[in-house]
Amino acid sequence: MTTVEERLAALEDLVRGLRDERDISQLIAAYGPLVDDGDATGVAGLWTEDGGYDVDEMSMSGRTEIEAMVRSDGHQGLIANGCAHFLGPAHVTVDGDTAIATCHSLLVVHRGPRPDEAKPKSRFIVARATAHHFTLVRTADGWRVAQRTSRVLDGRDEAHLLLGNGVRGVR
Amino acid sequence: MTTVEERLAALEDLVRGLRDERDISQLIAAYGPLVDDGDATGVAGLWTEDGGYDVDEMSMSGRTEIEAMVRSDGHQGLIANGCAHFLGPAHVTVDGDTAIATCHSLLVVHRGPRPDEAKPKSRFIVARATAHHFTLVRTADGWRVAQRTSRVLDGRDEAHLLLGNGVRGVR
Amino acid sequence: MTTVEERLAALEDLVRGLRDERDISQLIAAYGPLVDDGDATGVAGLWTEDGGYDVDEMSMSGRTEIEAMVRSDGHQGLIANGCAHFLGPAHVTVDGDTAIATCHSLLVVHRGPRPDEAKPKSRFIVARATAHHFTLVRTADGWRVAQRTSRVLDGRDEAHLLLGNGVRGVR
Repeated sequence: MTTVEERLAALEDLVRGLRDERDISQLIAAYGPLVDDGDATGVAGLWTEDGGYDVDEMSMSGRTEIEAMVRSDGHQGLIANGCAHFLGPAHVTVDGDTAIATCHSLLVVHRGPRPDEAKPKSRFIVARATAHHFTLVRTADGWRVAQRTSRVLDGRDEAHLLLGNGVRGVR
Repeated sequence: MTTVEERLAALEDLVRGLRDERDISQLIAAYGPLVDDGDATGVAGLWTEDGGYDVDEMSMSGRTEIEAMVRSDGHQGLIANGCAHFLGPAHVTVDGDTAIATCHSLLVVHRGPRPDEAKPKSRFIVARATAHHFTLVRTADGWRVAQRTSRVLDGRDEAHLLLGNGVRGVR
Repeated sequence: MTTVEERLAALEDLVRGLRDERDISQLIAAYGPLVDDGDATGVAGLWTEDGGYDVDEMSMSGRTEIEAMVRSDGHQGLIANGCAHFLGPAHVTVDGDTAIATCHSLLVVHRGPRPDEAKPKSRFIVARATAHHFTLVRTADGWRVAQRTSRVLDGRDEAHLLLGNGVRGVR
């Protein structure tokens, strides 16, 4: 026979697990909207103070470098032209105070009318499809990204592997 | 010492919060499939009776106007040609009986073969990338959209701001 | 008056429902990353042993046929060139030990530089937008896909209907 006390403890465990996954999903779902709004502090605050973000040729370490990327001419130019950093639903695996997550993203950018168009129209193109692998840690302020590794899905093995490892809960 | 009664009450609060967020995520996840299926009543039923939907040049007020949009020649033409109103995972912030949510969407449309193609093929283009900001309210029938504001991500400041404010929980 | 016992039982029901939906969402969110990584066993393991996957002209029955699709030259060629099977957030309806879910997907593929380009650049195109309808069952190992039906969103009625029926909880 299971006592009320035991049932309550089991339920508390289960609910904490659901809450952890919810928190992590929301953290990742916040990235695209914040980075498209150019909210450098908000974006960097998704990471731990010394968290890392390694994306192809560029590797950032700590919130200051992540903020600088959001404030860079390159990123601000994307925003000024119109862009969507569109992340998919994250697959999340929690293990105590750390977690692994993965998702795809599409960088969709706006292109204005071409000069020679009879009937000018704006259009959107998929500039990049990217694989993301997140290592997350539980901090006093909630879950934060400790390391994010992102690779363009142009056929390089490491990009596809980030996705598979992310689902398999492997770092 | 925390009593069973206190632990149960704390857990009930936490679970109600998770359920609210789940309900809102599902409500928003229902929009794309229902609107692509042309289910005018289903789409309009995601809003409150007098809910608003303000999308660039067009502003709808109340379920009747939202139903009319789904039934319009413009929308029915999209469906007949093939389309995906593809919304991303929503970021949701619940505050009592109201909530704020945000997500991106892509409108992907099908284009048939071009007349001069040697090897005819169908293709898909991203016709629009859009920012969405939802204000939701708890009703007797569950969560419903009170106001949805959508702006094309073509560089206009208000579009990017909808995303940032959505995550920051600002109306 | 509601007793502690009754409150606990109500909460257990609610939490089990949330966990079921979480499990199903995660199962579906695992598909894209695993299939892009070419993990044939991992992909097939999302289905029941005799589960079905019916996608336009191709119909697979059982894990062995699903594994063969992942290992096929066609799919391996997509991976080698770079691709993203990008699924949207699933709408999930649980009814006891079965469930219905639906989502969109985009197949985004990488295209290398064109031979005649002055300034070579890689690009991505949306090769397909697809509607998915899942019937899921609870097994001893957790939720698995019993049947997945997928149709390209090129205007054919059955594709749009899969989405609407998915949200309405209809098979």
